[in-house]
Amino acid sequence: MGFWLTEKHTEGYSVNWKFIKTLYADRSDYQHIAVIDTLEFGRALILDGVVQTTEKDEFIYHEMIVHPVMMSHPEPQKVLVIGGGDGGAIREAIKYKSVKQADLVEIDDKVIWASREFLPEVSCALSDKKVRILVEDGLQFIKNKQAYYDVIFIDSSDPVGPAKGLFSREFYSDVYNALKEDGIMVAQTESPTFNKNLLADVHKALSGMFPITKTYLTAIATYIGGFWTFTIGSKHYDPATTNPDSSMVNSFNLKYYNEEIHRASFVLPNYIKKIFD
Amino acid sequence: MGFWLTEKHTEGYSVNWKFIKTLYADRSDYQHIAVIDTLEFGRALILDGVVQTTEKDEFIYHEMIVHPVMMSHPEPQKVLVIGGGDGGAIREAIKYKSVKQADLVEIDDKVIWASREFLPEVSCALSDKKVRILVEDGLQFIKNKQAYYDVIFIDSSDPVGPAKGLFSREFYSDVYNALKEDGIMVAQTESPTFNKNLLADVHKALSGMFPITKTYLTAIATYIGGFWTFTIGSKHYDPATTNPDSSMVNSFNLKYYNEEIHRASFVLPNYIKKIFD
Repeated sequence: MGFWLTEKHTEGYSVNWKFIKTLYADRSDYQHIAVIDTLEFGRALILDGVVQTTEKDEFIYHEMIVHPVMMSHPEPQKVLVIGGGDGGAIREAIKYKSVKQADLVEIDDKVIWASREFLPEVSCALSDKKVRILVEDGLQFIKNKQAYYDVIFIDSSDPVGPAKGLFSREFYSDVYNALKEDGIMVAQTESPTFNKNLLADVHKALSGMFPITKTYLTAIATYIGGFWTFTIGSKHYDPATTNPDSSMVNSFNLKYYNEEIHRASFVLPNYIKKIFD
Repeated sequence: MGFWLTEKHTEGYSVNWKFIKTLYADRSDYQHIAVIDTLEFGRALILDGVVQTTEKDEFIYHEMIVHPVMMSHPEPQKVLVIGGGDGGAIREAIKYKSVKQADLVEIDDKVIWASREFLPEVSCALSDKKVRILVEDGLQFIKNKQAYYDVIFIDSSDPVGPAKGLFSREFYSDVYNALKEDGIMVAQTESPTFNKNLLADVHKALSGMFPITKTYLTAIATYIGGFWTFTIGSKHYDPATTNPDSSMVNSFNLKYYNEEIHRASFVLPNYIKKIFD
């Protein structure tokens, strides 16, 4: 009946992906890395058995981790992606003409290599001259930056393995310090169904540091659990009341994000609001 | 390793639900019916191997199939649910004081029986005095009604088996005729990822009959494929520009729907808008 990858989400829930072939599989110093060609979603990057991104719907995650914060900052010049070795977030971030420097700090160079080799449409921007790739631990890297970045994206995998520290209070405090006085950060904060406590913890931690903390929503077929959340910590600009620049939005030719989606994404159902009470 | 239900969504994608026990399993004249107690989502109603509703997140689907249209009609008095034998949609609909008659037309009385027996929180309203239960074929029932209902809900299972006809143009035409001159209908229209063509077809069919056709979104953990869609056909009121009655919304104590969600749900990402081009 062919090859199947079973991705375990919880003790009682898992998903099966039929795939045509394995393009790459190796163990790095940090995790097991694979790229498989799935029947439904095209090529998929898998870390420690968990699907990170697929050709078919990567645009949703990558547009939505980037544009809500970038559109909320009047002139983001220096941006940082922590994690995100596939290059999808940086691809969206460098669409802004104001960006002069886009740093990517990824701990695992094999993730970068596999994405360059097998996911060219996701990783294409990694060769852009604005992009600086630093293969090192984001937790350490961020400690040495003070009031340096306009926008920081925490584009992590799930809160286990190498990404665990990227959900810690100490790390968020370092991110706060690495941002300029009107800087904004955003983190992917998992499913409100399967990771409710994590979402609550991150929201609470950021609320204790930033004057403005907002969680917003999308839904991504390859990440199960209903809605997917992102949480913003902002020192000055309120992304929930931003009016995105329509000519800029149109010039990007996006597949998900638009002006109306910006505002609508910050509207939360009651059961998600309640997580933050 | 316990009991697992594997729910096949497409040739290349399926989901596994661990369950503690089977509370009920039988074959009706129309389909196989089961109620299982799952580890992650509580009790689940399964028709022909497909999860229909679960205790944990049924509120999302049932609130969202009902309130966006009910809030868009100034005084819905006669409402009809076609399908929806679990009773969840009718439970939400009879919260409106204006409702004098709520008809439920379900083809399979074993679905009603199983829901009453094993899903009391979903089916509780089936015993309400406003509710009239008709065990018959919705396709035939609707043909005999002319300008009778204010609101019709098409609360069907997937477009296979007994629900297939509930996605046909002829049926929608009968629904149109069964609505009063300012009536509104809404149908669940599946995932835009896994059922894109069906969603496009329904939207097109309704656009050819109703002056106002609108698709809106939610995301439900137990229905995979990212967003879940509902599509409205309205003869007069535009649900996308409705301002829901805030005192009524608050009085319902809902777990999902709120005033801001109403408007935000009608905002579509570009890739979904494109389905209707």
